[in-house]
Amino acid sequence: MGAKKNNNFVYFFGNKKADGKGSMKEVLGGKGAGLAEMTEIGINVPPGFTISTAVCGIFYENKKSIPAEIIDEITKNIIKLESSTKKGFGDSKNPLLVSVRSGAMFSMPGMMDTILNLGLNDKTVQGIIKKTNNPRFAWDSYRRFIQMFSDVVLKVNKDIFEDKLESIKKKKNVKHDVDLDENALKSLVQEYKKIVKNKTGKNFPQNPSDQLFKAINAVFLSWNNQRAIFYRKQYDIPSEIGTAVNVQSMVFGNMGDDCGTGVGFTRDPLSGEKELFAEYLLNAQGEDVVAGIRTPKNIKTMQRELRKVHSQIENTAKILEKHFRDMQDFEFTIENEKLYLLQTRSGKRSGIAAAKIACDMVKETLISKDEAVLRVEPEHLEQFLFPIFNPDDKKKFEILTKGLAASPGAASGKVALDAQTAVELSKKGERVILVTKETSPDDIHGMAAAAGVLTARGGRTSHAAVVGRQMGKVCVVGAEEIKVNIKERNFTVFDKIVNEGDYISIDGFEGKVFPGDIPVVASEVIQVMQGNMKEISSERYKIFSTILKWADSFRKLNIRTNADVPADAATAIKFGAEGIGLCRTEHMFFAEDRIKIMQEMILSKNSSERIVHLDKLKKMQKEDFIGLFTSMEGFPCTIRLLDPPLHEFLPNREDLMLEIKELQIKEDNAILLKEKIELLERVEELHEFNPMLGLRGCRLGITMPEITKMQVQAIFEAAIEVEKKKIKVLPEIMIPLVGMVTEFKYQKDIVDEIAKKIVGKKKINYLVGTMIEVPRAAAVADKIAKEAEFFSFGTNDLTQTVFAYSRDDAAKFINKYLETKVNIDGKDIEILEKDPFTSIDRDGVGEFMKLGLSKGRSSRKNLKIGICGEHGGDPSSIEFCHNIGLNYVSCSPFRVPIARLAAARVALKNK
Amino acid sequence: MGAKKNNNFVYFFGNKKADGKGSMKEVLGGKGAGLAEMTEIGINVPPGFTISTAVCGIFYENKKSIPAEIIDEITKNIIKLESSTKKGFGDSKNPLLVSVRSGAMFSMPGMMDTILNLGLNDKTVQGIIKKTNNPRFAWDSYRRFIQMFSDVVLKVNKDIFEDKLESIKKKKNVKHDVDLDENALKSLVQEYKKIVKNKTGKNFPQNPSDQLFKAINAVFLSWNNQRAIFYRKQYDIPSEIGTAVNVQSMVFGNMGDDCGTGVGFTRDPLSGEKELFAEYLLNAQGEDVVAGIRTPKNIKTMQRELRKVHSQIENTAKILEKHFRDMQDFEFTIENEKLYLLQTRSGKRSGIAAAKIACDMVKETLISKDEAVLRVEPEHLEQFLFPIFNPDDKKKFEILTKGLAASPGAASGKVALDAQTAVELSKKGERVILVTKETSPDDIHGMAAAAGVLTARGGRTSHAAVVGRQMGKVCVVGAEEIKVNIKERNFTVFDKIVNEGDYISIDGFEGKVFPGDIPVVASEVIQVMQGNMKEISSERYKIFSTILKWADSFRKLNIRTNADVPADAATAIKFGAEGIGLCRTEHMFFAEDRIKIMQEMILSKNSSERIVHLDKLKKMQKEDFIGLFTSMEGFPCTIRLLDPPLHEFLPNREDLMLEIKELQIKEDNAILLKEKIELLERVEELHEFNPMLGLRGCRLGITMPEITKMQVQAIFEAAIEVEKKKIKVLPEIMIPLVGMVTEFKYQKDIVDEIAKKIVGKKKINYLVGTMIEVPRAAAVADKIAKEAEFFSFGTNDLTQTVFAYSRDDAAKFINKYLETKVNIDGKDIEILEKDPFTSIDRDGVGEFMKLGLSKGRSSRKNLKIGICGEHGGDPSSIEFCHNIGLNYVSCSPFRVPIARLAAARVALKNK
Repeated sequence: MGAKKNNNFVYFFGNKKADGKGSMKEVLGGKGAGLAEMTEIGINVPPGFTISTAVCGIFYENKKSIPAEIIDEITKNIIKLESSTKKGFGDSKNPLLVSVRSGAMFSMPGMMDTILNLGLNDKTVQGIIKKTNNPRFAWDSYRRFIQMFSDVVLKVNKDIFEDKLESIKKKKNVKHDVDLDENALKSLVQEYKKIVKNKTGKNFPQNPSDQLFKAINAVFLSWNNQRAIFYRKQYDIPSEIGTAVNVQSMVFGNMGDDCGTGVGFTRDPLSGEKELFAEYLLNAQGEDVVAGIRTPKNIKTMQRELRKVHSQIENTAKILEKHFRDMQDFEFTIENEKLYLLQTRSGKRSGIAAAKIACDMVKETLISKDEAVLRVEPEHLEQFLFPIFNPDDKKKFEILTKGLAASPGAASGKVALDAQTAVELSKKGERVILVTKETSPDDIHGMAAAAGVLTARGGRTSHAAVVGRQMGKVCVVGAEEIKVNIKERNFTVFDKIVNEGDYISIDGFEGKVFPGDIPVVASEVIQVMQGNMKEISSERYKIFSTILKWADSFRKLNIRTNADVPADAATAIKFGAEGIGLCRTEHMFFAEDRIKIMQEMILSKNSSERIVHLDKLKKMQKEDFIGLFTSMEGFPCTIRLLDPPLHEFLPNREDLMLEIKELQIKEDNAILLKEKIELLERVEELHEFNPMLGLRGCRLGITMPEITKMQVQAIFEAAIEVEKKKIKVLPEIMIPLVGMVTEFKYQKDIVDEIAKKIVGKKKINYLVGTMIEVPRAAAVADKIAKEAEFFSFGTNDLTQTVFAYSRDDAAKFINKYLETKVNIDGKDIEILEKDPFTSIDRDGVGEFMKLGLSKGRSSRKNLKIGICGEHGGDPSSIEFCHNIGLNYVSCSPFRVPIARLAAARVALKNK
Repeated sequence: MGAKKNNNFVYFFGNKKADGKGSMKEVLGGKGAGLAEMTEIGINVPPGFTISTAVCGIFYENKKSIPAEIIDEITKNIIKLESSTKKGFGDSKNPLLVSVRSGAMFSMPGMMDTILNLGLNDKTVQGIIKKTNNPRFAWDSYRRFIQMFSDVVLKVNKDIFEDKLESIKKKKNVKHDVDLDENALKSLVQEYKKIVKNKTGKNFPQNPSDQLFKAINAVFLSWNNQRAIFYRKQYDIPSEIGTAVNVQSMVFGNMGDDCGTGVGFTRDPLSGEKELFAEYLLNAQGEDVVAGIRTPKNIKTMQRELRKVHSQIENTAKILEKHFRDMQDFEFTIENEKLYLLQTRSGKRSGIAAAKIACDMVKETLISKDEAVLRVEPEHLEQFLFPIFNPDDKKKFEILTKGLAASPGAASGKVALDAQTAVELSKKGERVILVTKETSPDDIHGMAAAAGVLTARGGRTSHAAVVGRQMGKVCVVGAEEIKVNIKERNFTVFDKIVNEGDYISIDGFEGKVFPGDIPVVASEVIQVMQGNMKEISSERYKIFSTILKWADSFRKLNIRTNADVPADAATAIKFGAEGIGLCRTEHMFFAEDRIKIMQEMILSKNSSERIVHLDKLKKMQKEDFIGLFTSMEGFPCTIRLLDPPLHEFLPNREDLMLEIKELQIKEDNAILLKEKIELLERVEELHEFNPMLGLRGCRLGITMPEITKMQVQAIFEAAIEVEKKKIKVLPEIMIPLVGMVTEFKYQKDIVDEIAKKIVGKKKINYLVGTMIEVPRAAAVADKIAKEAEFFSFGTNDLTQTVFAYSRDDAAKFINKYLETKVNIDGKDIEILEKDPFTSIDRDGVGEFMKLGLSKGRSSRKNLKIGICGEHGGDPSSIEFCHNIGLNYVSCSPFRVPIARLAAARVALKNK
């Protein structure tokens, strides 16, 4: 079944033979590859050809036009298609009509443009009338073509056509498009052509070839429309891969009641259950299902309506799944009871479905465990941790209405009736539920901003459902009782009115909609973790833990957690953490009973006074460490010494100034005034212009060694206590903000001295290491590694210093940078592609990490190196950490499972 | 005359032959090398041997003791010395007495310990009495030896001996040491021995060998005393080079009035005049001259007192200078009219003398121009720029007293009567004049803190004079009318009293002391530059410009200046700048008439309002640029676009808060309150936690492109104006704070667009380049260099980001770091060796500069690269910039000559 390549840029398929094949997604795009593969395995696919993704790049380089030699190739393929279908392009008797569709390597549902029924003109419409003996169909097809072509190619606002359609419906006094008769549609075509002439100054193009090339150009151009760019950014799809264009002979689902069109999944994409999951509309064209404009019927009703076709679909689904070894999402058209497949691809699925399908397919021996792990994205696992509604609370709320459960989870928030409002409310920090008639690709930014999506129309294969599942947004669709009233900014369910801004709650597992703000509780998985649910009674927990068990057998990276208190540490251990990678000791000082002592310590006038307060703090710290060490059950525990600038513990400087001003003016409390002035003086002494770059980290421990001593004493005293309980303790003491080996050594000497004093002849295996979080540390990592026993990349601060971005201040320009484009080497790219605080900036921060790592290991061969910034829980960053050779990543407790899976996946990918 | 090496660690000299030679300073130290070389060229030097500097390192590694095999070598050399002098160590009839002196590669005058008369004990003192027939001399030598040895080796406080001496003088009713007779001194020896027994529990050591090895150990230990460490830090002398120890047979200048001791310079070390400059004391030991305890006589008086010796000295000085081809600083002793040389070395000199001597020696064909340039340190040239007293002002002040001019310049300040007080006053920001009886090496930190030094005792070769000249401190010594009264914290000149804290002024050219604070004016060189003095009438200017003219012929680096206004630019051009390397455009906005408009611009509610204010600013900026371009006379001019965060232009946030609070409490001006609240809101919007890492640099120009546009318009409009005047304009537009090529390109596109619009068909040769000042820019410099036409390292910000040090806040811990030591690889070193804001941190910041440079040139081979941080005027940093291959350095106008010289010197060193 090897692919035969007849030319450079165009790949034909039809009559059970294809130039391309399924594995050529990069060249043919997903759709083109699927069509080629289906053709080869004998599935009934209307013939056509795919213009490869390479042409998209060439198109942009060639001033947005297709070079002559490729035009030639396309023309040759049209001739081939004519002979294959025995129809003629522009042939007034037996006209060839085609669809022109985009299709990139990665699915971008609805983001780019599509044109159907291309080839129709004033002559060929007559041929269709004669051939089908269905003039109503022919005129309807023609008017749809003009409408679509004008919108996509000629950039005539589609609302003008819709208005005309509505006015004709009103005139004819009909409610639905389908109720318009042949004459109405014929005159509509005349009106449409007038609009085109009026708006563009030219007649609607009549030459099919002309139509075709204009359409192909338009599809290529749509690769860079706003929503496609947004979508790519959202899903990290590189812009240089380009889209292919598929030109395919039309089949019609809208020629009568033995025709139809539909979309199916070989398994349930919401739950992952192994059962055919499809929806269809009779007498309709494909876009009607996907767009969610009419709510389609469940495949089960087809057993009654078109029994033969139903079993053909069931059969085809089985063939597809077995052949592609994955759950497939397919599109089909029924023309006069004959089934045609128009697309197949790996089906998008909810996270829970992804994991369940992966588990099931391993059981079915369809895929290996490796493949199963690669099929579950880290983001998929997050859905197992999404909160659900508290069953007791839910009982208190009456159901408002019900729709189709389309994407799992529970969400409540304020109603927003359009995408823009959703974005605005979300920017104000509100939880938002986007409620619309249906969503379209234009709404994608609104969906991204919302916690959940509720639509009145559309099935579980509609845009809202597909995108919702992919984004991990809770989603309920096809809640048909809902009437959205945009003018009055509300929606109604019979006599109940919900205004924009009111709270509603939606349940994406059951499709239920509630008025009000229902509190959420932990997911099943978390409840099992917390001992509030039995492991055995949760199917979800079983799937979750199975995938992770497999993942653990593949991953090379150790996973640790960032935890400051025993409770968090214990959770992380349950989630599979293999130690603490970062305990921020300063968090222990912010507790109410401690901050007072901390303040007194800081305000001490001399070292001996300071030591009195430090002694009090030591007792508390020791208890903290006893708790942490105990919870670690023998895993290592990295403790970072005090890091933040001391003024963070003191009263706010500006507040003090204002208080003093007030006391000065009112002259009523001289004693308090004096006290406040003294306090302000000390606060001013510690005040810094750039605290991020000030007296913090090891600079504190060097200028006030008594703080370091106190902390180290607490650590070792706690270690001795815990070891008495026969629990192994592995403290790894971490010095923050080191830029020079001298700083590190000065601190290490204190640690070693105290350890010797406290531990004496007993044995505690401890390490002393450092954060690598200022650029200089990377440059001199060889020197530092001579003294330091481990490194941990503090990528938060490293990102701040490498970019010279203050995390507290940078949002203003980072947001601008993410949106603003600039032309580099002929390509328009964003100033910043990703927020470097979310995902490691590989070119900059990543280079410094590599430098630090290679220099560090050059002087200490087996130097243990980890990462403990926020990036430790980001899958893309974890991949980078694996690739450069880190030993472990450390992340917040709830990210631990995500990190375990991400680490396994990168190990498998590199296998 | 090749050196013969008889062993590994000890080098003998005597009888016109030496194991070492003058070029072996690294091994023998300066003193040892000088003694060896003088011995070889036939100058009369008492024989002895040098223990090499390598032994110092071995001593410290060997737990502060000398290994047995080296002890053996030393012992063999003692035997050789005995045979050479025909005296015996411990021989009661003909005893050998030796001096034990330190001597490192670099001169560290008085910082380490010395012991004279070693070999004396209760027996040998009798031998000396018999041999010299001068019991008074013998007992005086013995008591001096006990005093010195006890202080240095036995660590008995020297004040106890001094007290005893004073009490005996009182008892005997004599005023001076010399007035004590034989018996008094003999009983003093007994008292001294009792003190030793009392304080150490042991008898004063009698065995000469024991004395010797204890003394050698003490000298090695003194390498790491506090003042030696401070001195090394001050002069960047590495601590690992160690000191040598010179053991030399004693000759005595204190055996009578045909004996004496002195110090000389072959030329005048203050003015550089070619005339013998020496001072001596009859019947005295060497330390008396250097310590400045007795004011010595000028060499001219020796013509009367010891005519023969005087001509021997003149003759020896000529031989030395001719042989060493440099001005020599020598020490001599006269024993019974016989001249012995004890030391020679290149003489320390004032900066003005250094330059004059270098110029003169070229004329005398003693040295080449290369050598002349290498003999003048960049710091030397600074003295030509030191202010002098305004002659008119000076007339208004009566002279208080007169001393010897010892180090040039004019200084006024508050009197401090000891080093500690000088440091404290200086920390408070006061100008200080340190006034003491005499200075000792312990006072070095006080001298460093003072603007000038005035001593009551000592000659122009005293400690204060030598160190003052070297440090470039104004210095007047030997002002004998001054009586310092430490108890009453004042000094008097006859009946006039000057209290500590009062102002005085001292003139280091003329040796005059004035009461009060005399204003200073520009130096001769600067007056010539400013056209206030004729070139021809200033000898100093001629020397200054000659050295620089020679320097220019050797240097490879271009020197530019940092200048924001035409006046500064013009000064820099006169100083030899070859263009502007940094024009900080923001400084133009701080002028009183502009800051208002700037504030209105910032507070604008929208872009169109902002443009109105920007237009006003543009007119002003254009005038500025016209001035700058005109002053550049065809040199390139690098203009940095707006860099600082905008809130720097706005009213102070805290002040506003307090004003509002007051208005709120007083409730008397609602309109003003409202206004202030609105202003504060905008200020708060712009407020940042870490402004250094915030919305500044190109981030401003990208978020508000209209600012960039205004500035670029002003640049090009000005360029066109100036080119009309037939002055070539070469604007180099510099984008600040770039971290990504996208940022740079976005800004460059704006520049190019505006340039095209304004310049049209005219031709302005402009470049667009970038600062490299955040670490990320160095990592991606290859990408940036594809778009950027030049780089300029902004080492101020680069140092801040590489270290994560805020320049505004770091002083607290940097000072601590510079003082705190830590043990690395067995050596005690400071946490920070130098302040990285003063001198480029080569290991860290320097590494990133090298990375940026090599990456930049990898994609643009001839990329022009410069530096415009404060480091551009620091000689050590200039050396580094030359070595890594920069094209230019840019510094403040007054640093331009320093930079020219530093650049020439490094080019010559690398030749």
